[in-house]
Amino acid sequence: MPGVPPTRFVYLGPESTFTEQALLTIPAAVRGIRTPARSVPEALEAVRSGDADAALVPWENSVGGAVGVTLDELVDGPALVITRDVVVPVDFVLAARGDRHLQNIRSVAAHPQAFTQCRGWLRSHIPDAAIVDVLSNGAAAASAADGTNDAAICAPIAIDRFGLKVLAEKIADHPDAVTRFVLLSRPGTPPPDPTGDDITSLAVWIAHDKVGALLAVLTELAVRGVNLTRIESRPTGERLGRYVFFLECTGHVAEARVGEALQGLRRICAEVRFLGSYPRATPPGTRERPVPPPAGLSDLDYADSAAWLSRLRRGELG
Amino acid sequence: MPGVPPTRFVYLGPESTFTEQALLTIPAAVRGIRTPARSVPEALEAVRSGDADAALVPWENSVGGAVGVTLDELVDGPALVITRDVVVPVDFVLAARGDRHLQNIRSVAAHPQAFTQCRGWLRSHIPDAAIVDVLSNGAAAASAADGTNDAAICAPIAIDRFGLKVLAEKIADHPDAVTRFVLLSRPGTPPPDPTGDDITSLAVWIAHDKVGALLAVLTELAVRGVNLTRIESRPTGERLGRYVFFLECTGHVAEARVGEALQGLRRICAEVRFLGSYPRATPPGTRERPVPPPAGLSDLDYADSAAWLSRLRRGELG
Amino acid sequence: MPGVPPTRFVYLGPESTFTEQALLTIPAAVRGIRTPARSVPEALEAVRSGDADAALVPWENSVGGAVGVTLDELVDGPALVITRDVVVPVDFVLAARGDRHLQNIRSVAAHPQAFTQCRGWLRSHIPDAAIVDVLSNGAAAASAADGTNDAAICAPIAIDRFGLKVLAEKIADHPDAVTRFVLLSRPGTPPPDPTGDDITSLAVWIAHDKVGALLAVLTELAVRGVNLTRIESRPTGERLGRYVFFLECTGHVAEARVGEALQGLRRICAEVRFLGSYPRATPPGTRERPVPPPAGLSDLDYADSAAWLSRLRRGELG
Amino acid sequence: MPGVPPTRFVYLGPESTFTEQALLTIPAAVRGIRTPARSVPEALEAVRSGDADAALVPWENSVGGAVGVTLDELVDGPALVITRDVVVPVDFVLAARGDRHLQNIRSVAAHPQAFTQCRGWLRSHIPDAAIVDVLSNGAAAASAADGTNDAAICAPIAIDRFGLKVLAEKIADHPDAVTRFVLLSRPGTPPPDPTGDDITSLAVWIAHDKVGALLAVLTELAVRGVNLTRIESRPTGERLGRYVFFLECTGHVAEARVGEALQGLRRICAEVRFLGSYPRATPPGTRERPVPPPAGLSDLDYADSAAWLSRLRRGELG
Repeated sequence: MPGVPPTRFVYLGPESTFTEQALLTIPAAVRGIRTPARSVPEALEAVRSGDADAALVPWENSVGGAVGVTLDELVDGPALVITRDVVVPVDFVLAARGDRHLQNIRSVAAHPQAFTQCRGWLRSHIPDAAIVDVLSNGAAAASAADGTNDAAICAPIAIDRFGLKVLAEKIADHPDAVTRFVLLSRPGTPPPDPTGDDITSLAVWIAHDKVGALLAVLTELAVRGVNLTRIESRPTGERLGRYVFFLECTGHVAEARVGEALQGLRRICAEVRFLGSYPRATPPGTRERPVPPPAGLSDLDYADSAAWLSRLRRGELG
Repeated sequence: MPGVPPTRFVYLGPESTFTEQALLTIPAAVRGIRTPARSVPEALEAVRSGDADAALVPWENSVGGAVGVTLDELVDGPALVITRDVVVPVDFVLAARGDRHLQNIRSVAAHPQAFTQCRGWLRSHIPDAAIVDVLSNGAAAASAADGTNDAAICAPIAIDRFGLKVLAEKIADHPDAVTRFVLLSRPGTPPPDPTGDDITSLAVWIAHDKVGALLAVLTELAVRGVNLTRIESRPTGERLGRYVFFLECTGHVAEARVGEALQGLRRICAEVRFLGSYPRATPPGTRERPVPPPAGLSDLDYADSAAWLSRLRRGELG
Repeated sequence: MPGVPPTRFVYLGPESTFTEQALLTIPAAVRGIRTPARSVPEALEAVRSGDADAALVPWENSVGGAVGVTLDELVDGPALVITRDVVVPVDFVLAARGDRHLQNIRSVAAHPQAFTQCRGWLRSHIPDAAIVDVLSNGAAAASAADGTNDAAICAPIAIDRFGLKVLAEKIADHPDAVTRFVLLSRPGTPPPDPTGDDITSLAVWIAHDKVGALLAVLTELAVRGVNLTRIESRPTGERLGRYVFFLECTGHVAEARVGEALQGLRRICAEVRFLGSYPRATPPGTRERPVPPPAGLSDLDYADSAAWLSRLRRGELG
Repeated sequence: MPGVPPTRFVYLGPESTFTEQALLTIPAAVRGIRTPARSVPEALEAVRSGDADAALVPWENSVGGAVGVTLDELVDGPALVITRDVVVPVDFVLAARGDRHLQNIRSVAAHPQAFTQCRGWLRSHIPDAAIVDVLSNGAAAASAADGTNDAAICAPIAIDRFGLKVLAEKIADHPDAVTRFVLLSRPGTPPPDPTGDDITSLAVWIAHDKVGALLAVLTELAVRGVNLTRIESRPTGERLGRYVFFLECTGHVAEARVGEALQGLRRICAEVRFLGSYPRATPPGTRERPVPPPAGLSDLDYADSAAWLSRLRRGELG
């Protein structure tokens, strides 16, 4: 019996990084095809071109912040939507070939985000080591394995694969650091159903000749009781002072208050790009309760007010 | 051939007042039945009970302000809606029987609103005359005609009817004073069609345990670009500090932005009573241009944003 | 030993009204000289001209609402300030000469505010009686005493003085109705010291070419945590749609947050008239707890932030 | 004659980068001592420890966005203040040793920000070349010079110093790209005098148990007419969803409206760190007119309102 073809996942490679580890928490990806991409742009391009069905890429880190290249690529090209997010702990290790010792480490290969997160440990343990930026935690491990650098900051998953030994564990300055990844697909199907604990992601371009435009954007959300959980600005590239804002809110596009707020943004912003509504992921062991809509702003309240307005418009009032 | 029965109008009497004069500017009233009521409550009761089809009552005066009894009666009983308003100039005269002269006037019958508007003239011309409050400008004229008082402040229309003579014309302190009347009917038919220059009237009760509730009310309007043209507070009667707010806005309930704002008020207020959407009347000779909806907030913009939201919800994005 | 001259109080007369009753709750007035005025304008003029030191006039009623003439007169002439307010219960009685009986009452003299508050009782008990508006509750009693009208709605204090008998007690529709009076003086001395439970009264004229001006006014207050307890609009007399707003807030001009809010209003409004900061009066038996300033907005918080700013400006930061 | 000791500047090294080029636009730096630092943290540490008087570090780029490490280091340690900013064009070149040709380039050393800005050119001209992240544009040039990589994206200033040849000029995707640097000093002296075209930089931590806290922050600015020109969020490192916001506004801490807004932020935010008020730099050839304070919000208007409040508090009103 012929089955449906397996889903083709692409992820920010190389193999043996936290991204691959995050991908393996998605059951469909475990069953599907998983292909590493050399860069975030390449991963997104694979989905846009149809070579892959979905791409998992890093989105933000609790220490390093937003992953600028993902934000930039997402709004620079045909629309993609987030269909889910994944949060994974980031347990960095310092690894090296078997013949190296901590006291002799003169160069450490590290992805910039990894370096950012282990800066304190590096300062206090190997302050004289040169830090060599590399493109990924996997590349860092490879660089240590082939001797280009003396050691690497990498994910535990890379140790066995590259035959490295661990010089130090838990070297991150924030032991609870996590990275959040998003799974991106081409639009075409409705967002996942609301769960009562969803996130809606947006990119908005504000009209730059309007004073107080960002205040107006936040007011459109606040008036509908839509809670803003994150705001990031990225330059549009035109000149200093021109930004696109990435907003994340609690709630789902299918909910009335979110829908009305989105329409409001559509009317006052130069451009709004909807980036998806999807269930909120939380790191293992830290499940929080969802934030309910404020009093008077549930879907039932919206339905009541819409029915009331219809009666007003028909001239019925009591 | 049997015709439709004539429309039955009731108005704040007695006859020969500015209210009757205002009523006669409405063509259907000229053709219909016109009955004076002894008070605003009686006029409204006639409509509520079905004895009359519509009531014309004073609403506000450019000098004396809101007509409290009309506001109070309108929200204290079954719903009525404003279907039009009428603005008439208020050209008070001081009138008396033929045997009286200005220098001998010791008592002047006057409706309190009339007194309020002629106070300056009275002070400077007959400062020693006692002002006797009466229930209407018509009653003032009758009081002068029957000798109860020496003179009356009344409408020109009362001069001939009561056989009075004019002691002084244009005695109002504000020569451009106008009174605005509203025509009230039972709900049951849709409001008059939007004209592009309409008013929507509301009464709202705010939740008194919420700090900043009035600010929230105004924000609901402002976010949708709905322009507030008037706000009046009236006590609810419970205690000091409890008010019902009467709001008037530009726009029509059938327009998208007004409808969305009304729904917002419905959700955040303890109660909202819709008092009608109707074409804006302006005094003779002072026609102003209607205020267009702000950029991005026309019905077309709302239709565009609603269509866009539908596409988002269906998963279509390009 | 020569003493200081007694304080000269004027009040809205005639004698034997609720205003006189209110005045007698002020110890200095009991010791001082008390003169009735024929009208609110006359009372205010007596203070403005120096013939009196202070005037007690009605300000608002929990049923009838604002006393328009007081509001209008207060902003139409040289500045006066409120130095205290007095709240008294309004226990109306229906009174008549000894020879009249309830079933024969055909005319009732009543001040319009009194009529407003007893409308329900009158409708259900003597629906056919004509209501004759008079200028005061005292004048109503006099009108019943001299036979001009069959009965009067008046204050209990008038019964003995005019030799009337009580036909019905507690005839007000709202048994808990109260009237609030204000004591007005010429400026020249600082407001009474803050007590922690004060009211500040203002009149503001907004710039009419600015959309959203009232929202801006309320925002100036809200940002400083100043709680608006009352807003009244009165026409400026120029034309429909031009209003002066009377605002009452919790707090005292000597407090930092109120002072900053007042300055903000001064900058954005066409005009602001300060009408006084004074201890809040509450009706007997209904003492409420004062509303404390919101977290972070006490005078201590303001002092802290001002000291911090001074350090910033001097270049000291830690 | 003994002179004052020269000012000691430290800058993000190595030599021959855009940062050194930016530093050389500051006359005092041309005359002073200029020392490269290996990293932004090292540069800031030099100032904090007193080893240097001022540090010039990158702040934001019109394409790559905020320089996260600078933002993070600035708020993670003793206070430093910005005393001026410098904007320089970013004219990247692709450079290599004399024996390399474009068609043979297999690896390109690039700082991540440089790579971000030249991505399009790289894709279309040498799509198969590996990009090797390095710590600086100077390190990129060195890496090409010593043969570690085939080529480098670097600043023109590095060509001569490293004996490289230019394979391609103007390879940035945005030909008008600029980088903005800030000069940081220890606090202790007042900010530079206001020029009428100044920027004030801040970091604010909002109270996370308050819904709408960011809206409240922006409202504190808007109410005083303070224009927000930039907002960046950086994680605090505690967990996802905890951010510190970097704000930049037009205006100077010595100006009344900015001072009042700062005090407001101080009162409502968990913490505010002042990062300096300084003249606004603009890129060569693009001088814009300063944004004047909104009507009613100049220092004169603040002085007027403060004087008015003093009169109110003293009881003087006319």
